[in-house]
Amino acid sequence: MYDQITVMAKELYEKSVALRRDLHRHPETGWLEMRTSAVIAGILTNLGYEVLTGRQVVDDGARMGLPSEEARREHAKLVREGWDTPLTYLTEEMEAGYTGVIGILRCGQGPVCALRFDIDALGVLEDENACHRPAREGFASQCPGVMHACGHDGHTAIGLGVAEVLMNLRAQLHGTVKLIFQPAEEGVRGARAIVSKGHLDDVDYFVGTHLAPLDGPDDGAVTPATYGSLATTKYDILYRGAPAHAGGFPEKGRNALLAAACAAMGLAAIPRHSEGSSRVNVGTLHAGTGRNVIPDYAKMEIELRGETTEINEYMAENARRVCEAAAAMYGCTCEMICMGAADSHHSDLTLADRAAAVIERELPDIRVSSVRCARNWGSEDISLMMNRVQSHGGQAICMRNITAMEAPQHTADFDFDEKVLEEGIRVFSAIAYDLLRDEPLHG
Amino acid sequence: MYDQITVMAKELYEKSVALRRDLHRHPETGWLEMRTSAVIAGILTNLGYEVLTGRQVVDDGARMGLPSEEARREHAKLVREGWDTPLTYLTEEMEAGYTGVIGILRCGQGPVCALRFDIDALGVLEDENACHRPAREGFASQCPGVMHACGHDGHTAIGLGVAEVLMNLRAQLHGTVKLIFQPAEEGVRGARAIVSKGHLDDVDYFVGTHLAPLDGPDDGAVTPATYGSLATTKYDILYRGAPAHAGGFPEKGRNALLAAACAAMGLAAIPRHSEGSSRVNVGTLHAGTGRNVIPDYAKMEIELRGETTEINEYMAENARRVCEAAAAMYGCTCEMICMGAADSHHSDLTLADRAAAVIERELPDIRVSSVRCARNWGSEDISLMMNRVQSHGGQAICMRNITAMEAPQHTADFDFDEKVLEEGIRVFSAIAYDLLRDEPLHG
Amino acid sequence: MYDQITVMAKELYEKSVALRRDLHRHPETGWLEMRTSAVIAGILTNLGYEVLTGRQVVDDGARMGLPSEEARREHAKLVREGWDTPLTYLTEEMEAGYTGVIGILRCGQGPVCALRFDIDALGVLEDENACHRPAREGFASQCPGVMHACGHDGHTAIGLGVAEVLMNLRAQLHGTVKLIFQPAEEGVRGARAIVSKGHLDDVDYFVGTHLAPLDGPDDGAVTPATYGSLATTKYDILYRGAPAHAGGFPEKGRNALLAAACAAMGLAAIPRHSEGSSRVNVGTLHAGTGRNVIPDYAKMEIELRGETTEINEYMAENARRVCEAAAAMYGCTCEMICMGAADSHHSDLTLADRAAAVIERELPDIRVSSVRCARNWGSEDISLMMNRVQSHGGQAICMRNITAMEAPQHTADFDFDEKVLEEGIRVFSAIAYDLLRDEPLHG
Amino acid sequence: MYDQITVMAKELYEKSVALRRDLHRHPETGWLEMRTSAVIAGILTNLGYEVLTGRQVVDDGARMGLPSEEARREHAKLVREGWDTPLTYLTEEMEAGYTGVIGILRCGQGPVCALRFDIDALGVLEDENACHRPAREGFASQCPGVMHACGHDGHTAIGLGVAEVLMNLRAQLHGTVKLIFQPAEEGVRGARAIVSKGHLDDVDYFVGTHLAPLDGPDDGAVTPATYGSLATTKYDILYRGAPAHAGGFPEKGRNALLAAACAAMGLAAIPRHSEGSSRVNVGTLHAGTGRNVIPDYAKMEIELRGETTEINEYMAENARRVCEAAAAMYGCTCEMICMGAADSHHSDLTLADRAAAVIERELPDIRVSSVRCARNWGSEDISLMMNRVQSHGGQAICMRNITAMEAPQHTADFDFDEKVLEEGIRVFSAIAYDLLRDEPLHG
Repeated sequence: MYDQITVMAKELYEKSVALRRDLHRHPETGWLEMRTSAVIAGILTNLGYEVLTGRQVVDDGARMGLPSEEARREHAKLVREGWDTPLTYLTEEMEAGYTGVIGILRCGQGPVCALRFDIDALGVLEDENACHRPAREGFASQCPGVMHACGHDGHTAIGLGVAEVLMNLRAQLHGTVKLIFQPAEEGVRGARAIVSKGHLDDVDYFVGTHLAPLDGPDDGAVTPATYGSLATTKYDILYRGAPAHAGGFPEKGRNALLAAACAAMGLAAIPRHSEGSSRVNVGTLHAGTGRNVIPDYAKMEIELRGETTEINEYMAENARRVCEAAAAMYGCTCEMICMGAADSHHSDLTLADRAAAVIERELPDIRVSSVRCARNWGSEDISLMMNRVQSHGGQAICMRNITAMEAPQHTADFDFDEKVLEEGIRVFSAIAYDLLRDEPLHG
Repeated sequence: MYDQITVMAKELYEKSVALRRDLHRHPETGWLEMRTSAVIAGILTNLGYEVLTGRQVVDDGARMGLPSEEARREHAKLVREGWDTPLTYLTEEMEAGYTGVIGILRCGQGPVCALRFDIDALGVLEDENACHRPAREGFASQCPGVMHACGHDGHTAIGLGVAEVLMNLRAQLHGTVKLIFQPAEEGVRGARAIVSKGHLDDVDYFVGTHLAPLDGPDDGAVTPATYGSLATTKYDILYRGAPAHAGGFPEKGRNALLAAACAAMGLAAIPRHSEGSSRVNVGTLHAGTGRNVIPDYAKMEIELRGETTEINEYMAENARRVCEAAAAMYGCTCEMICMGAADSHHSDLTLADRAAAVIERELPDIRVSSVRCARNWGSEDISLMMNRVQSHGGQAICMRNITAMEAPQHTADFDFDEKVLEEGIRVFSAIAYDLLRDEPLHG
Repeated sequence: MYDQITVMAKELYEKSVALRRDLHRHPETGWLEMRTSAVIAGILTNLGYEVLTGRQVVDDGARMGLPSEEARREHAKLVREGWDTPLTYLTEEMEAGYTGVIGILRCGQGPVCALRFDIDALGVLEDENACHRPAREGFASQCPGVMHACGHDGHTAIGLGVAEVLMNLRAQLHGTVKLIFQPAEEGVRGARAIVSKGHLDDVDYFVGTHLAPLDGPDDGAVTPATYGSLATTKYDILYRGAPAHAGGFPEKGRNALLAAACAAMGLAAIPRHSEGSSRVNVGTLHAGTGRNVIPDYAKMEIELRGETTEINEYMAENARRVCEAAAAMYGCTCEMICMGAADSHHSDLTLADRAAAVIERELPDIRVSSVRCARNWGSEDISLMMNRVQSHGGQAICMRNITAMEAPQHTADFDFDEKVLEEGIRVFSAIAYDLLRDEPLHG
Repeated sequence: MYDQITVMAKELYEKSVALRRDLHRHPETGWLEMRTSAVIAGILTNLGYEVLTGRQVVDDGARMGLPSEEARREHAKLVREGWDTPLTYLTEEMEAGYTGVIGILRCGQGPVCALRFDIDALGVLEDENACHRPAREGFASQCPGVMHACGHDGHTAIGLGVAEVLMNLRAQLHGTVKLIFQPAEEGVRGARAIVSKGHLDDVDYFVGTHLAPLDGPDDGAVTPATYGSLATTKYDILYRGAPAHAGGFPEKGRNALLAAACAAMGLAAIPRHSEGSSRVNVGTLHAGTGRNVIPDYAKMEIELRGETTEINEYMAENARRVCEAAAAMYGCTCEMICMGAADSHHSDLTLADRAAAVIERELPDIRVSSVRCARNWGSEDISLMMNRVQSHGGQAICMRNITAMEAPQHTADFDFDEKVLEEGIRVFSAIAYDLLRDEPLHG
C-alpha cells in the first residue's frame, strides 16, 4: 500500500506544483484567505469530502487580529471581481472573514486522525527581479505587498495532495480523517478560533508540519517531532484621554501619549522569571494629533513570550496590570485587544517514533533526522491544537519537512524546492495510513 | 485706655522677655508642646481665663503629622522628669500629644474676637557659639536638635502678655476674647485639628501675626494684613510590596521601590495649570532593605502647592491618582497619609484698615507699613482658620510684626530683637480693645 | 493728506476684496506660498517698488519647518500648471520654497519704517456648506485641506493696499518704506529667516497687526499695541536605534521607542519656573515598525513655551538635555530639528501712543481701544522682528485690527467682515505717513 | 601516607573544634577580619610557614566594598582593647583593613598547589536562645549583629588543620603549597584584591570548597567539583544634584531623586539576553533631605547578574550607560563604585576526577557524590581566582563538603556538625599530597 502512496504522490506532483503556484500568485493574509478557502473547498468537495467552511470552521468571537470590515470588503471585491476565483465555492461567510476549511472523510469505526495545514500569506512585497524564480517563471504575487514568504502555499498544496491520496485509500482506512486548513497562522491568530469550535476535541492523532531549510539543525528530509516554541500573547492596546490646547489649558488634557510611554517603561520592567526565558516588546507606538494638542489617543502593538505557557501567562498577567495602571495614572481609559496567542508545545514521542518507523521502513528514500524531537524557537499556534488534543489523551506531533530554500523565510526572495511537495504528500499519507489501517477491535 | 495698654505692656516687658527665654530654652516640636502647653495653661488659669486643653482644643482624628507614640512617650518623660515643668497643669492628654491651649474671657454680649498664636519649635540644632546671644546669655535650647528658630516663642510670649492686658481691661470689653495657642504650625499640621473642633465657627474677628525681618519688603513696624501664601498639601506615601531574592526568584517580588520611582516620575509630570502657579516635590524617598532583595517597602515625603486653594486641590487630586496607579502598576499597596495642609488666604481689608487706623491714631510711635496688604510667599495654616471665619461672614487678618533678626528664620543662628514683644502686646491689645469696646446695641 | 488716505482706501476697497478672495481661493501653507509670492511681487513691481524675492528675502539655512523637497515640487507643479499664477513673477527660488517678498520705497533721507504682513494659510479643510460665505460666493479654497483660516489673506490684501497708497504719497515722504510680506507664520517658522538676513537691522519704526474678533477684550476697532505672547520653541526629535527580532535577540536591539518614551516622561518633569508660566508638550509620537521587532526609529513633535523669552529658553535648554540623555540611556542617537521659534514681545508705548494719537486725530471714525497695550496669549513670531528692531534702539508695535468673524480663527467656518480691509489700509497708511512726513533735520 | 593524614586529622579534631568556636565567638565582616587575620598569621608562623599579610596579600586599590575609615577604626579598637587578640601578630595594616593571610610552604621543585579558605562573617544577629547550640555551649557571637552564619569559621579551621598536616608531610612534597585565607567573600568583594596582586599567576592546581547542607542535591560527603554560579557585579551609585526650595525656586534644583528614579526604571528595562539568564536589582534607594527641598542627593545599591561572565558584562555595561544617562537627564553627576564582582566558573574535570579518585581510593569511608560536577546557583568570588588559574593553563576545582546543618545558611540559627572539620582536613590534605607527591622529572 505504501508503494501505492509513493506512486500516487509522483502522479500528483505536477498538479501539486501548479496548485502551489496558483496559490503563490494569489496570496492572502490572515482572515482574508477568501479565494484560498474557495479553492480548497472546491477541491475537497470534488474529491468527495464532507466540507466545513465559514462559521462551521471558526468560532465567531475567537478570531484574533481580524482585519477591519473595510479591509475585508475591499479584498472580497478583488477576489470576486479581479481574480479567477471559483465563485461556486466562495461563500458570503468567507467574504466576511470566516476563512479556513475542514475536510472530513469518515471510514467507519476507528480513531480520528487530524492533519493540519496553514494557508495564509504574509505582508511582504515580493521581489520582482528575474533572479527570483516566481518572478522569472510568472507565478509571483498578484497582490503587491502580500506574499507567500513562509511556504504556506506549499503546506496547502501538500494537504490537498494528501486529500486525494487518502480518498483513494479510503477502502483500507478505519476511522476518520480530518484535514484542517487553518487560516491566520501568521501572528498566531487563527488556531484559537478552530480549537474553540471543538474540532480538536475528538482527535486521537494529530499531525502538523512546517517546511524548514536544509541548512538548519536537521540532518534528514523529515524531522518527526518538535517541541518548545515560545508561548506568546499579542495585544493591541488603545489609550484614550482628552485633548486640550497645550499652551492654553494643559490641565484639561488627559495625556494618552504619556500613559502609553509610562506603560512602555513598565512593560520593559516586568521582572525576569527564574524558571525560564521570557520576552516583552512594545513594537509600535503611535500617539497624538498635533504638536500643540495634549494627545488624547495612543495605540501600542505589544507581544509577550515565555519559554513555557506558564511563564507567558505570567508575562501577560503583568502586562495587563501595567497597561491598566498606566491608563489610571494619566486619567485615561485603556482597551486591550488580544491579537494573537500561542502556547509552547511538546510532541508525543510515541507518535513521533511510530511516524519515524513507518517512514524508515516504508519510504526508505526519505531520510529521517537523527534528532527525533528538535527544539523550535519561534512561536506557532499549532501549539493550541496540540495541547487540546493532548489534554484529553490524544497524541500530537509537529514535524519538519526539510527543503532547499532560496532565501530565509519571511523575506522578499523566499522560494523553495518544490520536490518537497511530493515528499510531504508521501510522508503525511503514510503516517495517516499507518494510523488508520488497523481494523479496531470489537469494543 | 490705649495709654493704659501702653503702660501695661511696658510693665510686662521684663516678664515677657523672661517667658520667651524660658520657652526658648525648652523648645518642643509639633504635637510635643507638652511643657509649653502646661506653661500656657498655668498662666491663663492664674489670670482667671476659662482654659481649654487636650481634646477640648484639638480634634482627635485631625492631628496631621503626629509623631509616633514612642516619640511622644519619650518626650513626655523628659518633660515630666528632666525639665522644670509646672506639673499641676501638665495633663495626660497633653502627654499623649493633645497639645495647644485656648483661653476664653467672656465679657457679656458682643462680638467674638479670636487672637491666634502658634507655639511650636523646629528641628534645628541651635548654634552654641558665644556670638549667638541665646548661647551667650544662657537661654539656648536645652533639647539638642530642637530650636525656636522661627520666633514662635515670641508669638507665645506676646499672646500671654495680651492675655494679661485684656484681663485687666475686661470691665471695658463687650463680647468674648478667645486666645488660641496653636500647636504644630510647622509643616502646616495643627490648624486643621482646631478648626475641625469648631473653635472658629463663632468668631467675628480674627487676628494673627508672624514676626518678620526688618529687611523685608515691609517699611513699618506693623503690616496690618497679608494675602497669598501657596495653598499646600503634604503627604507621606508608603508603598508595600513583597520581598524576594533578586537572584533566585525575581518574579516573586512586588517591587515597592519601582512603584515609588514610577510615582515620582508621574508626580513630576502633573500638567501645569493655566490659572496660576503650582508646585510638586518628592522631597525624600527611602526604599529597600538590601542589595540582593527585591524591595518590599518604600516611603516618600511629598508636597503639592498651588497659587489658589483650587489649584492646590487640582495638584493633590492628580497626586493621589498617580500614587495609587503606581502602586497598582507594580502590584503593591499604597497608603497616603496627609501630613499637613494649608489654603491660600486673604485678609479682610476692612478689618486691616480698622487695625491700621487704631494703631496710627492711638499708638503713634509704632509705624504702620504703607503697603496695607502684603503678599506672602510661604505656606501658613492660619489660612484654614481665616477661611473658616470668613466662610460664615467673619473678618480675618494676618499681620506681620517687624523686628530685627540676627539671621534668617529656620537657621541655627536665628534670634530677634525682643523689643517686638512689647510692641506686639500693644498692637494686639489695642486692636482687640477697639473691636470689643463698644457696647452692643439692643437686639 | 489723511483725508486723501481715506479717499484712496475707499477707492481701493473693491480691488482689495477681490485680491483677498483670490488669495483665499489659492491658499498656501508655510514655505509653499509660491503663487502668493508671485502675486505680491507682480503687484509691487507694477506699482514701482524695489522688490526682493527668494534668497534675497529669506536666509537659506534659517527656514524652519521646511516641507520636504517632494512636497515643494508637487505644489510647484500645481502652481505652475493647475492655477492661474502670474508666471512672469514666479521664480525658481520661489518654487524651491524661498517664499516671501519685500517691497522697498526709498524717499530720501529719513527713518526706515517697516510694515509687516504675514501671508501663509493653514492645514484646515474649508467648510463647503452654503452657509459658509466663501463657499456660497465661490471663493472657497481650491486646495482641499488648506485654508486661509486665520485671516492672513486679509493681512496681505491690506499690505498691498497700503503699498499703493504710500506709493501715491511718496512725494510727501522722507525716509524709507519697507513692506515685509512674511511666509510661514503658522508654526512660528518664517520670521527667523528674514531677521537672520538682516532686513530688520536698519528699521527705526516697525508696525505689524493681526485681525482679531469683535467679541474679544478689545473695545475699539484698533488696539494700537500688544505685549506678552508665550515665547516658544518647536522641535522635531528623531531617535534612531537598531532593530532586532524581539523574540530571538532582544539584547541586540537599540530601542528607540523606549528612548522616546523616557524622553516624554523627562520632558513632562522639567521643573516649573518660579518667575512665570511655562509649558511643554509632546504632541505626537510615532515609533516602531512591527510588533515583533525592537523599534529602531521614533519621532516626536514637541513644543516648549515660556511667559518670557528667558523662561522659554530655560525650557528649551532642559528639553535638549533630556532628549539627548534619553537617547544615551537606550544607546540611540538623537537628532533635534528646530521647527519653529518665537519670543515673547512688548510694544513700545511711545510708538503706540503716537499711532493712537494719529488715528484719533485724523481718522476719528475709527475707534481706538481704551486699553492701549493688550495682553496676547498665543505665540507669534513677529516677536523676533520686534525684538531685533528694539535691540538697536528702534520702536515696534504689534496692533490688533478688530473685525466681526463668523467663527473662531483656525476653524473650517472662519470668515471675516471685509470692511476691515479698508480700515486696515487707512490705519497703516496714516501711521506710516505720520512717521515719515517730517523732513529730517540736517545732521 | 594517606593513613597518616587520617590519623593526624583525628588528632587535630579537638583543636580544630576549639579554633572554629573561637572564631565563631569573634566574627568579623569583610575587610574587618583583623583578629581573624592575626590568629591565622600566628598559627601559620608558629607552624613554620612563610607568612604574607596586609598589603602583601591584597592590592591597595582593588578592595571592593571597603567599610568606612571610621568603621575600621572602631572595630580595630574593639579588637585591640576588647578582645583576646594575639597582639603580636596584629599589624597596623590589618587594622587599616588590609586583611587576609597567605601561608607558603616551599618544598623544592614541583607544581604550585593553592588551597583557598574564606574567613569573613555576616551581618546577622545570632540567635541567643538555648536551643541554638553556640548560645547553649557558650561560643555564640561576641559581636551583636555579626555572625559566622555561612560556615567560614569552619573553612578557616579546616585550612589551619591542613596547614599543620602538610607541614608534617613536607619532606614528602615536591613543589609549593599556598594556603590562601581570603577576606570579604560575602558580597564577592575580596577575591579581586588577591588576584590583582598576582598570587594566582603561578598556580598549577587550585582547590577551594564550601560547606553545603546534607539535604541538598549532593548524595555524598564530598562533591569534587561545581560549575555555574551567576556572574555578578555590585555597584553603589551616588547621584549629586543641587538643592533648592521646592516652593520658591524649583527651577534652580538639580533633582537627584528623579535621576535615581529614572535610572531605576531604565535598569529594570535592560533587555533580556537570548543566550541565558540575567538579573538586575536596585535593592535600596535613599534620596533627599526634606519634604520641601529639591533632593540633591540619592544613593542606590544595585546588582547585576548573568548566567555567564559575558551576559553579566552585558548587564553591567548597560547599567553603566543607563545610570550615567539618568544623571545627565536631570543635570546631576553620577558616581559608580564597584562594590563586588564575581564571574561564573567551571571546574576542571580532570582535576575533579583525580581528586575523586584519591578520595575513593585512599579515604574510602568518605563517600564521593555520584554527580562529579554540580551546578551552583549563587555567586562566589572564588570564580575570579579559578578563572585566573585557568587562564594560564592551571587547573581548578571548587568542591562541596557536605554536613548536617541546623538551619539554612545566612540565618540566625545556623550551625553545622563539626565532624566536617576532620573530614575537610583529610580531603584537602589528601588531594594536595596527591598533587605534590611526585618528584618532578628533570626539565
